[in-house]
Amino acid sequence: MTHLTSEVLEILAGKTLATAESCTGGMIGQMLTAIPGSSAVYKGGIISYTNEIKNKLLGVDMALLEREGAVSAPVAKAMAEGARRVLCADIAVSVTGLAGPGGDDRGNPVGTVYIGYADETGAEAIFFHFDGDREAVRTQAAQAALQLVLSKN
Amino acid sequence: MTHLTSEVLEILAGKTLATAESCTGGMIGQMLTAIPGSSAVYKGGIISYTNEIKNKLLGVDMALLEREGAVSAPVAKAMAEGARRVLCADIAVSVTGLAGPGGDDRGNPVGTVYIGYADETGAEAIFFHFDGDREAVRTQAAQAALQLVLSKN
Repeated sequence: MTHLTSEVLEILAGKTLATAESCTGGMIGQMLTAIPGSSAVYKGGIISYTNEIKNKLLGVDMALLEREGAVSAPVAKAMAEGARRVLCADIAVSVTGLAGPGGDDRGNPVGTVYIGYADETGAEAIFFHFDGDREAVRTQAAQAALQLVLSKN
Repeated sequence: MTHLTSEVLEILAGKTLATAESCTGGMIGQMLTAIPGSSAVYKGGIISYTNEIKNKLLGVDMALLEREGAVSAPVAKAMAEGARRVLCADIAVSVTGLAGPGGDDRGNPVGTVYIGYADETGAEAIFFHFDGDREAVRTQAAQAALQLVLSKN
């Protein structure tokens, strides 16, 4: 884990990174800031654990949240775009998903996770399904988010 | 750790909590959201790893940051007040400190941590000094922040 995090910080040298976390609740930020000197790249993030915060702090459209649901590709993408804009970062990564124990009222099962990525060329979101309990889903989601940043840089 | 976090969520039932984290970088949010159902209390937080983010997202006055330094009681207090206001929460807790390996240019040694707390009656900040390496300081700071919330409620 430390290795992956260090690699992300090294590959982004000279650029800045921001995070927007829902189901991981700060885990990605915590992993990045475990590395001394991470502030050269990592500016910070928003833990948006409710729809209200996704809307108010990240600027995710409330109509989009209601139409697509918080755990969806469009919302993951909008969260990454919002974090990049609000935190004035070169790159932003976002996570929204269902860590369990229950799924949501839209039929999404536990382990459903969308990871968003935004940079100066645009934004996208990728669907994942992770097995395991709440902590296993959260850890895999955080790792996948860092892997996505690596793969894009 | 899980016990402490569960206690905080139980004691705050019916109220809402927000976080503003600097040196812990999301650790408190991650601990809270490890508990299923935490969204009933925990609205989210801001990981303000740079002065720019403390100012822009939490509304901490830049002159205060420059005069007192990021690791100071007035800044911890302003971070908690900012998180409470910006996230529209009943209670907010904040952490700013030096997790190491180095101190700052103001003579503060590694392990210096200020924890801020804000609720409807006002705000305050408490000084701590923790021993150990970066991870030990961060973990103790996160625990102390949760303990402070417990002691106030």
